[in-house]
Amino acid sequence: MFRANNPTLKSWVNVPAGNDFPIQNLPFGVYRAEGGEPHLCVAIGEHVADLYVLSEHGFFDDLAIERNIFRQPVLNDFIALGKDKTRAVRNRLSEILDDDLETWDASELAPFFLIPQASAELLLPLHIGDYTDFYSSREHASNVGAMFRSAENPLLPNWLHLPVGYHGRASSIVVSGTPVRRPKGQLMADGAEQPVYEPTRQLDFELEMAFVIGKNTELGQTVSTAEAEDYIFGMLLFNDWSARDIQRWEYVPLGPFLGKNFASTVSPWVVTLDALEPFRVDGPKQEPEVLPYLQCTGARGFDLQLEVHIAPETGAAKQVCHSNFKYLYWNMCQQLAHHTSNGCNIRTGDLCASGTISGPTPDSFGSMLEISWKGTRPVAMPDGSERRFIEDGDTVVMRGWGEKDGIRIGFGEARGKVIPSSI
Amino acid sequence: MFRANNPTLKSWVNVPAGNDFPIQNLPFGVYRAEGGEPHLCVAIGEHVADLYVLSEHGFFDDLAIERNIFRQPVLNDFIALGKDKTRAVRNRLSEILDDDLETWDASELAPFFLIPQASAELLLPLHIGDYTDFYSSREHASNVGAMFRSAENPLLPNWLHLPVGYHGRASSIVVSGTPVRRPKGQLMADGAEQPVYEPTRQLDFELEMAFVIGKNTELGQTVSTAEAEDYIFGMLLFNDWSARDIQRWEYVPLGPFLGKNFASTVSPWVVTLDALEPFRVDGPKQEPEVLPYLQCTGARGFDLQLEVHIAPETGAAKQVCHSNFKYLYWNMCQQLAHHTSNGCNIRTGDLCASGTISGPTPDSFGSMLEISWKGTRPVAMPDGSERRFIEDGDTVVMRGWGEKDGIRIGFGEARGKVIPSSI
Repeated sequence: MFRANNPTLKSWVNVPAGNDFPIQNLPFGVYRAEGGEPHLCVAIGEHVADLYVLSEHGFFDDLAIERNIFRQPVLNDFIALGKDKTRAVRNRLSEILDDDLETWDASELAPFFLIPQASAELLLPLHIGDYTDFYSSREHASNVGAMFRSAENPLLPNWLHLPVGYHGRASSIVVSGTPVRRPKGQLMADGAEQPVYEPTRQLDFELEMAFVIGKNTELGQTVSTAEAEDYIFGMLLFNDWSARDIQRWEYVPLGPFLGKNFASTVSPWVVTLDALEPFRVDGPKQEPEVLPYLQCTGARGFDLQLEVHIAPETGAAKQVCHSNFKYLYWNMCQQLAHHTSNGCNIRTGDLCASGTISGPTPDSFGSMLEISWKGTRPVAMPDGSERRFIEDGDTVVMRGWGEKDGIRIGFGEARGKVIPSSI
Repeated sequence: MFRANNPTLKSWVNVPAGNDFPIQNLPFGVYRAEGGEPHLCVAIGEHVADLYVLSEHGFFDDLAIERNIFRQPVLNDFIALGKDKTRAVRNRLSEILDDDLETWDASELAPFFLIPQASAELLLPLHIGDYTDFYSSREHASNVGAMFRSAENPLLPNWLHLPVGYHGRASSIVVSGTPVRRPKGQLMADGAEQPVYEPTRQLDFELEMAFVIGKNTELGQTVSTAEAEDYIFGMLLFNDWSARDIQRWEYVPLGPFLGKNFASTVSPWVVTLDALEPFRVDGPKQEPEVLPYLQCTGARGFDLQLEVHIAPETGAAKQVCHSNFKYLYWNMCQQLAHHTSNGCNIRTGDLCASGTISGPTPDSFGSMLEISWKGTRPVAMPDGSERRFIEDGDTVVMRGWGEKDGIRIGFGEARGKVIPSSI
């Protein structure tokens, strides 16, 4: 279906082995060259390809896309063109970068539109109108339920009937590389009589992925599971930073607030759903059967490997998690059908995150809360120190990719260094 | 402090007795004349005054404000000018509309900039980046707690220590007059073994007010209670429509989602905090003492009367609630200080709603859930029918105003008619 997905393609741009961005990926982002204005781009190997420069050289002229769409600080207007157009651009890029085709060979123009990623400032690629966070990993929900409620009966009664979700903060979503300040907040220690206002002692990551809404709906409109993928442009990595002690004290009865909204980190590249086609898999069997509006046909899961590393300020980094997107119990089509089942409207650029993606074994748990089991099983770091939660100076790095037939379609990184609280 | 607040002022524009919009109010909004483009405006009596037309006639030239700021679909850029400028505009308008001052008399230009409200389409006046809902009425939280948890001990342990809040949906906030479709959703009846997907049977309003953020902060920055009012531009009426049966089944453990995000209705006028100065009152005594970051000095409550009416499709309307903004336990300064206490950033145009504003007596309860006490005390309507919740064809109308020295500063209406679910 998608020319760009052809595994036999090779680019005239060097793509080192194991790189996330072969010609079959071409994820979209926004970058700013030094002193310049933001332009849309794709990743290719260790470079970004500037779409505005390519448009100025006429490479997209026959696609009837206004050139200014590529000279924007966010992808929203481009995505809003619709999948016919955005697919045509991705396919055209695959022609431009292909070493076999002469028609669109742009290699002589490389100095004008290829920029080393190392010298490109990658920006938050979206204006995010609304951000929703789901809670769709059965293993994660079960771990949390077992820790705080009951090991025998860890799931709440609604969990197997609907993809639980809630609204999060859009303003504090930042792009990979942005430092994250340890938040202060109200904490109530076990057995204490009074809360205190202090820096969190339980700063955590949550390994998530998010999908990007690609098409608006009107208020009152629903989107079926069968239609849902038409409304999903692509995906990125998402670290839903959490302050467990703030969250625990505040969250009844209306849910997480200040324990979450101080920062969320996304990767700079939106990998299209198209590029992820090779990695489709069936999701877990759902029992009991879900209501008709949540039923799905076809393979709606994706086999995407996920890793979390903690890199202290000094000493070697430690991988603390290896999970997979395919573990999720509720898939994106079900999440979106549920989200719109009451007529709630969605807008291009909205983000829907998965919730923490934990797998069945302790080495696949997607948060320190689970990995250290509430702090009772500290993680040994290479430098001899221990981690129950994240400490000042630590950098948390998330990576994700699918791999098949020697082709690796990667997401890059969602990376954030924790800096001390200001008090 | 504010020229425009002088109670002796009178306008050459007719303002009928009991009208919400005397010259002392001058709330800001956005309207579109038939076939025209959106312009900023203020309400005066039964008219809107077009700020762009006034700017074209040079009335704001000495204030160094670009004229295009008044030719926008939302107030955000105007508000972002800062209080010095927006105050200067309000004071200038008070000169222009004043029947005593000759310098700025614009009465001869009335046909060019005064439009009857009846023929002006009032638009949603803000781009709302993030919407937060608080839960700051002790009476409301106690009523809900008594109904669903314990009459003896209705408040959860955190409630008296912090203003509980959560994030809501920005995309589905609509302006007064927009119809509201009855949402469908997953419902689990008491004693049932399986949920169903059906139209809500418990559609409710929540009487709230919201404040509008007037100034950005950076991520990591906190706003103290003393600084908070610098960051609050003004207020409007807010109906946080709720589907109680959807909400009850979905809301553990992460809070309300589809039970709320199908629609929220706001009034079209943003009344400035300046115009509300005459109505300052002390809030309820807070016991136990709150943490230092939540302590306030000065009168931070506002004596604003609030009403809710239900108007059925046929038959007379019925007033079902008379409450007051002054009942709120947590004031806006405390809400904002808490919201930013973890460094969460805020942006001009963000909305923070109060939560349902219930008073101490049953006739001041701010939702049908409380008024009908979970449906056990139906409300008799003038046509002989009963209401436990809101029915198709009902229009819910909220009104609010302060009144002092014969001057009424009103908010207009937040009005929404419920139309049947599409199934």
